[in-house]
Amino acid sequence: MHRFTVWAPNANKMSVKIGDAWHPMSGPDEAGWWNASVESAGNNTDYAFMLDDDATPYPDPRGPWQPHGVHGPSRVYDHDAFVWNDNRWQGPPLSGAVIYEMHVGTFTIAGTFEAAIERLNYLFELGITHIELMPVVAFPGKFGWGYDGVALFAVNDLYGGPNGLKRFVDACHSRGLAVLMDVVYNHFGPVGNYTTKFGPYLTHRHNTPWGDAVNFEEAGADEVRRFFCDNALMWMRDYHVDGLRLDAVHEFMDRSAIHFMEQLSAEVEILSSTLERKLVLIAESDLNDPKMVTPREAGGYGMDAQWSDDFHHALFTILNVEVEGKGYYVDFGSFERLAKALTAVFVYDGVYSRYRRHTHGRPVNGLSAHHFIGFIQNHDQVGNRATGDRLEQIVGVARAKVAIGIVLMSPFVPLLFQGEEFAASSPFQYFAEHDEPAMAIAVREGRKREFAAFGWNPDEIPNPDEAETFGRSKLNWDEIHDGKHGEMLEWVRQLIHLRRHTPCLNDGDLNHLKVKFDEDKQWLTMDRGEVRVLCNLGQEAVELDSPHGFSPLLSSRNDIQVVNGKVLLPQDSIVILSAKTA
Amino acid sequence: MHRFTVWAPNANKMSVKIGDAWHPMSGPDEAGWWNASVESAGNNTDYAFMLDDDATPYPDPRGPWQPHGVHGPSRVYDHDAFVWNDNRWQGPPLSGAVIYEMHVGTFTIAGTFEAAIERLNYLFELGITHIELMPVVAFPGKFGWGYDGVALFAVNDLYGGPNGLKRFVDACHSRGLAVLMDVVYNHFGPVGNYTTKFGPYLTHRHNTPWGDAVNFEEAGADEVRRFFCDNALMWMRDYHVDGLRLDAVHEFMDRSAIHFMEQLSAEVEILSSTLERKLVLIAESDLNDPKMVTPREAGGYGMDAQWSDDFHHALFTILNVEVEGKGYYVDFGSFERLAKALTAVFVYDGVYSRYRRHTHGRPVNGLSAHHFIGFIQNHDQVGNRATGDRLEQIVGVARAKVAIGIVLMSPFVPLLFQGEEFAASSPFQYFAEHDEPAMAIAVREGRKREFAAFGWNPDEIPNPDEAETFGRSKLNWDEIHDGKHGEMLEWVRQLIHLRRHTPCLNDGDLNHLKVKFDEDKQWLTMDRGEVRVLCNLGQEAVELDSPHGFSPLLSSRNDIQVVNGKVLLPQDSIVILSAKTA
Repeated sequence: MHRFTVWAPNANKMSVKIGDAWHPMSGPDEAGWWNASVESAGNNTDYAFMLDDDATPYPDPRGPWQPHGVHGPSRVYDHDAFVWNDNRWQGPPLSGAVIYEMHVGTFTIAGTFEAAIERLNYLFELGITHIELMPVVAFPGKFGWGYDGVALFAVNDLYGGPNGLKRFVDACHSRGLAVLMDVVYNHFGPVGNYTTKFGPYLTHRHNTPWGDAVNFEEAGADEVRRFFCDNALMWMRDYHVDGLRLDAVHEFMDRSAIHFMEQLSAEVEILSSTLERKLVLIAESDLNDPKMVTPREAGGYGMDAQWSDDFHHALFTILNVEVEGKGYYVDFGSFERLAKALTAVFVYDGVYSRYRRHTHGRPVNGLSAHHFIGFIQNHDQVGNRATGDRLEQIVGVARAKVAIGIVLMSPFVPLLFQGEEFAASSPFQYFAEHDEPAMAIAVREGRKREFAAFGWNPDEIPNPDEAETFGRSKLNWDEIHDGKHGEMLEWVRQLIHLRRHTPCLNDGDLNHLKVKFDEDKQWLTMDRGEVRVLCNLGQEAVELDSPHGFSPLLSSRNDIQVVNGKVLLPQDSIVILSAKTA
Repeated sequence: MHRFTVWAPNANKMSVKIGDAWHPMSGPDEAGWWNASVESAGNNTDYAFMLDDDATPYPDPRGPWQPHGVHGPSRVYDHDAFVWNDNRWQGPPLSGAVIYEMHVGTFTIAGTFEAAIERLNYLFELGITHIELMPVVAFPGKFGWGYDGVALFAVNDLYGGPNGLKRFVDACHSRGLAVLMDVVYNHFGPVGNYTTKFGPYLTHRHNTPWGDAVNFEEAGADEVRRFFCDNALMWMRDYHVDGLRLDAVHEFMDRSAIHFMEQLSAEVEILSSTLERKLVLIAESDLNDPKMVTPREAGGYGMDAQWSDDFHHALFTILNVEVEGKGYYVDFGSFERLAKALTAVFVYDGVYSRYRRHTHGRPVNGLSAHHFIGFIQNHDQVGNRATGDRLEQIVGVARAKVAIGIVLMSPFVPLLFQGEEFAASSPFQYFAEHDEPAMAIAVREGRKREFAAFGWNPDEIPNPDEAETFGRSKLNWDEIHDGKHGEMLEWVRQLIHLRRHTPCLNDGDLNHLKVKFDEDKQWLTMDRGEVRVLCNLGQEAVELDSPHGFSPLLSSRNDIQVVNGKVLLPQDSIVILSAKTA
């Protein structure tokens, strides 16, 4: 016996279809829910819903498993059947985290959770504490980044389905690794989204880059909010995930007195208390609004952290002058901006943005830097380049080493993108197989046009819908120990080790951080208590002060000289000094 | 010589047209502004702007005077020429206010500021402290409520233009009356809005009941926000207005880290400090969000007060069972709801609303009741009824006296709608002359359809665009001393006098207020320190306790009996007891 439920507030008649049998449902109740208990159904039963007089069976918006793809029937899945080995698991706190962003499909050749598990020891030894999975829910087609998911409660079968994810999380926990998951609550993918057949999941009131906004504030919004909150709670409760990264929260349109994010963070706190382990929420926000990570008691939304794009842009424009003045990089491009990002988090904290053509942001006054995630590469920053080339390919290994050095010595919680740690030669390109030819063509042509505007030859832009684009983006694990790859890997391992074992590098108080720089000579120093970081990104060697009693702990090159309290840094180098002996 | 300036960020060419002469403007500067100094122009010069190759001259979006109507040229106006007599004026604080909402066009037969001045002594003697003007800016047509204004910096010439408003404000101040003004920053009227020719004042990103939303957050938003902030500051600085009522702030769509309302309240505070008198901002908000009136330092928007619709709806459904279950009244209709409104402000404070079909609002925890404006009549509540009939016409004078008694004894800052104080017989109907026939027909037919849905005969619905509808809505000052009108006037005068001279009635602490009620017998009592208010809205007399040492101060009927510590209240009556001797 299985009891099926579905929210369909405007339907007049509902059935659940199992095989060729239609089982009428009772409803709707006051909140718009229908239900039917079916004697013959149970674990692993495939089912679909029939709405009113529509002859098409639709998958369950909350279907836990879509073994036949997003257009096919859903399958009943018993969360209690899995045997976990992570009893009394407590993940490391986010404040001390080193996050590794992973796309399951390209992390390994096989592109599955099972294959990814084989690399977990490597990540643990590298010093990673948290793995952040790009979205793993079901989307149409055989490959994709995951942001066009439509069956938001179902783990993609391409990666291994529900049991695959559970085995992956369990394997992470057994190695002391926490798992974060990227979830997309600001839109549904353009193909295979049947939720709107069932209820007012979307509203015409607001427009987003993907069309109608998610309905967080109008009639029916309670159940739409429940849909997303329940989704979040499911990952953490049933899949033992340790936290979520919420995609593009600036596209949540919600004027309610209790914002969706506030509701979600309150519910996650309750679950956290119940499960007796800390669960975290991380927002991707383009608003430069400290409210995101301000406690709810102080009028904020209570997210644990948010991504810090200003830091990326400030650092990237310093590393790579090619992008100066292009797109949003017009707002960056000086050491002064980078210094502001390091000390104030938001470069745009209530000042005019030329790119946006309006005043943007607000100061973070008093918030810990541990509420912000810092990175120089991530899936967007690599993948949204025309050919998905990585930092080392753009600026060379010496500058890439300086960049990751700054990230890992920064006050922010650092995030690495898969392969960054060994300067992977494989690109991360934009790939998305939509199983609708018109959509595939629209995406392909749109992308060519977008980059043609920046002077690219359209033929050079990889086709998102070709399997080769996906294949090309897979990491090549054979190269990790060779030459520059091995050099980078060792460098990253040392930096992470230093960060994780040095208390002053785990201090989130921005008042304790001092930055100096020279815009002309292009050097920057950062004092963090007993650690001084010196970087030279200029064309010439520079001589910088080493405070009395400080000595080098780590250097990105082996030709660094320390003479009479001065450090001589060749171009493209970084040195970390400490008052403690190494 | 006069220097003309205008914001037109996308124009390639701008001129100012004076008579037949075109004077080319310089610009745009970085912020999109153009300017031209014209030797021959000065005070009272009529001018218009020519944009690019458009042959139509357009009025200045910030035109200070539109003597030829909203489609015609603007006129230069010298704010410094007016001689004020209100030196060192300090208005009474909002916490002790009794507000009187006035529509200049219908307050007197002449419908002008000048005619309204003649009634100011009457309002002063009634005990009014603040006059709140419905919008007085320029709109197309010869009559209207004012919410379809398009020349937001120009005082409507129908009422007396800029000098008329100044004389009115000066006359109010000379009598100790403060002036609040209703301003509409959520849309422009549908006819005669030329702002969009000049710049991105609106955005497609969000839809409002009036179409595209005002652009508070996208490219160009800084100058759009300046437009509205400068407008607000102008009224208070140049017209000596004491505060503003912001129409429908829930239609402000603004995800910026610094919300438009927060910016505005910060700027008004600076002006307040500079002018050395307290300026206030009052929001009409449908969001039941205490953030509106929470100090900015505590994460709020820093409005001084907001309208409290829940209190109106809770009280109105008790008075008038006819509306029970209709429209938004479905959410009200019990003494329990009224008691909650009195003690908790928001009845919908995070609970499910059947009307809205979602959870609504948030508790006001700890905020003073003086942040909320209470009323049983206002322009919307009267005027948005099919025929604009007033409370006394709906429920009779006895119940209307109880209603205003509750309002004036409530913890909220009370607001009366013009004529309410004498149970005026004239209705306040919806009137709007759009000088575009198609718009007039659309509005007329829309209104008939709207009320036909509630069972009205369309022929009974007054035509908004007929002068008779406007004329019918004018107050008849001849009736104020007669019969029920005189009775009501005296009653309101006594209540206001009592409120203004009794400290415990000026206590905004909701913890000090106790309400009891009987849902069946339909009585309610309210304890406010040394004052007890007893109301009977049931069909039968009730006997309620008079605490030891309390005696009647005021009663709505003269057949109230107090015997052995009990007050016998006949139906539709209210008695105010006090521990002090009257």
